Amino acid sequence: MSSEKRLNDYDTVSLSESGKHLVIIDQTLLPGELRYLKLRELEDIREAIYMLRVRGAPAIGVAAAIGLYVIADGLLEEGFSETPEFLEELRVRADYLADARPTAVNLRWAVDRMMEAAQSMAEEAPETITEELRKEALKIRDEDVDVCRRIGEHGLTVLRDGQGILTHCNAGRLATVRYGTATAPIYIGQENGYEFRVFADETRPLLQGARLTSYELAEAGIDVTLICDNMAATVLKNGWADTVITGADRVAANGDSANKIGTMGLAIIAKHFGIPFYIAAPTSTIDMDTADGSDIIIEERPGDEIRTMWYERPMAPEEAGTYNPSFDVTDHELITGIITEYGIAYPPFRESLAEIMRRKECEE
Amino acid sequence: MSSEKRLNDYDTVSLSESGKHLVIIDQTLLPGELRYLKLRELEDIREAIYMLRVRGAPAIGVAAAIGLYVIADGLLEEGFSETPEFLEELRVRADYLADARPTAVNLRWAVDRMMEAAQSMAEEAPETITEELRKEALKIRDEDVDVCRRIGEHGLTVLRDGQGILTHCNAGRLATVRYGTATAPIYIGQENGYEFRVFADETRPLLQGARLTSYELAEAGIDVTLICDNMAATVLKNGWADTVITGADRVAANGDSANKIGTMGLAIIAKHFGIPFYIAAPTSTIDMDTADGSDIIIEERPGDEIRTMWYERPMAPEEAGTYNPSFDVTDHELITGIITEYGIAYPPFRESLAEIMRRKECEE
Repeated sequence: MSSEKRLNDYDTVSLSESGKHLVIIDQTLLPGELRYLKLRELEDIREAIYMLRVRGAPAIGVAAAIGLYVIADGLLEEGFSETPEFLEELRVRADYLADARPTAVNLRWAVDRMMEAAQSMAEEAPETITEELRKEALKIRDEDVDVCRRIGEHGLTVLRDGQGILTHCNAGRLATVRYGTATAPIYIGQENGYEFRVFADETRPLLQGARLTSYELAEAGIDVTLICDNMAATVLKNGWADTVITGADRVAANGDSANKIGTMGLAIIAKHFGIPFYIAAPTSTIDMDTADGSDIIIEERPGDEIRTMWYERPMAPEEAGTYNPSFDVTDHELITGIITEYGIAYPPFRESLAEIMRRKECEE
Repeated sequence: MSSEKRLNDYDTVSLSESGKHLVIIDQTLLPGELRYLKLRELEDIREAIYMLRVRGAPAIGVAAAIGLYVIADGLLEEGFSETPEFLEELRVRADYLADARPTAVNLRWAVDRMMEAAQSMAEEAPETITEELRKEALKIRDEDVDVCRRIGEHGLTVLRDGQGILTHCNAGRLATVRYGTATAPIYIGQENGYEFRVFADETRPLLQGARLTSYELAEAGIDVTLICDNMAATVLKNGWADTVITGADRVAANGDSANKIGTMGLAIIAKHFGIPFYIAAPTSTIDMDTADGSDIIIEERPGDEIRTMWYERPMAPEEAGTYNPSFDVTDHELITGIITEYGIAYPPFRESLAEIMRRKECEE
């Protein structure tokens, strides 16, 4: 046994035992180095989010929540003892933090939720507010763990011991506190003694599948095989994967699902070979106000991510144009089921997703 | 105008004006540097083939043929004036050359054809034999140019001016003397004033699409857009490419076609969107003795090509397994047509390919 730190010794995002630091894995160093960062200063926390040291919508949300708590704790130390001034200082810092990645919906959501908790206690002393923020941050963390666990439990019902699973990008524990979303059924299965053979698409151009998914699954002792994206068809044709599971960034009311570029092609190929294709995503990803995928705008990123990133020398001439969409939208007709923490939605999705959302409202 | 050498100033493989050197582009330096190598010594020619400085089945065959001629010319210079001794020395060198890449069928084919030409003149003087070898080598070169040109002319009949074309890997001019196979309709179209918009899959793990296809098309002044393999589905969904054309390494009698990994998935996606998918390949690639694709053995290559090649640091942990097949087999049902120098074969391929091969026999 090695005495080195292992990935599974800690959550992806946590509060230090002393209660003074946000603790995250610096994901920009993976898979070469596993380094935990203990952060307390606003600038450091913001930089970690901005530089993608912590990434994945749920993990960013939890990092912002715990981050805002340690920032509040820092204000106490600095001597802000009057509530109005304390809240004003906190508000300025919260806005600055939320601005680190303006398009990260979960970042703004977590910051807003924390600030609402703080504002609702405007009659209390800063110490009391700070203690409440600690509880709220840990609640946000616990909810993430719970949501992922329940996605895993529901997802496990469509899997069987010993089967092959293909996944794309990283909707893994590194994108959440623990378990992940697409990987949750795999980890929950492992806890229950299931053995899976997982195939991980490397996921060009940013290689999240190679750098993160194959890393975290291997660290967890799960049998994982890394492939290039264009090899998925051969894996499915060979009968090596019986199920495809990916995450989603946004699910429309009709089930159309935006996810990392390559997901749609994978879903088409899975359908061709008659292999079930599942989306695993928390209900926070389901947007009932988006009627279908045509309303989802696809972000384009710089061509140099394809041409030069990671490489020792440019792999394509400057003269060649590039097209580098971050996401694609998988048509609902290609999706077997959408696995959420409130159960699995099956076609017709307009009805089943609405039912899932009703269940959520009733429980809340 | 720049006075620098441009790709299109020379063929991919040629005989120098002095008649003393095999001239090739060192493709291992592309796309960063365009360097022509003038080779005369056996060891240098063999090394160029072994190290993939020249690659692509047709280009390798022509390089071996011209190479063997300059080696014969070298033997003359060394003073081998007796035919039996001259032929024996040439045979030893020919075997050594053919051994540079034992699985490259075209290499052995070209060497054998050259040696048959030499052996058939066993009554002649070494000078006469060498002159005959020069003619035979240039004939092999001319045949390659002619085959590619005819593939281009036939292929152009299914294209229209201004359309989008998606291709995978490099079945381009860099893999042949001129024109390429999958790219031949594009270049012949350009000669005829057609303008195309071409999308080139980067083609992981060896990036032939990025390094070679996007380079050679951009050099030729053709509008080319480089994408990651997993973006092809979005390009087709967007309606930006009306036709997919790839090369093939081997076509079975029923039309099943082995080509670079990723071709099969691309064909499935093209079919899903109702977009025609063509294979462009010389009849030398059609193997009527292979009944169907199940008889084609898929070569696997080292996992480090996925994990570490090109990258500044390993992009996946050692603990993750890899699967790295070089080729896949596209089912004939996914193929719209197979473009050869004797016309386009359409389904049912068993009949149409047999007819193509009959045409070839009649012409020969």
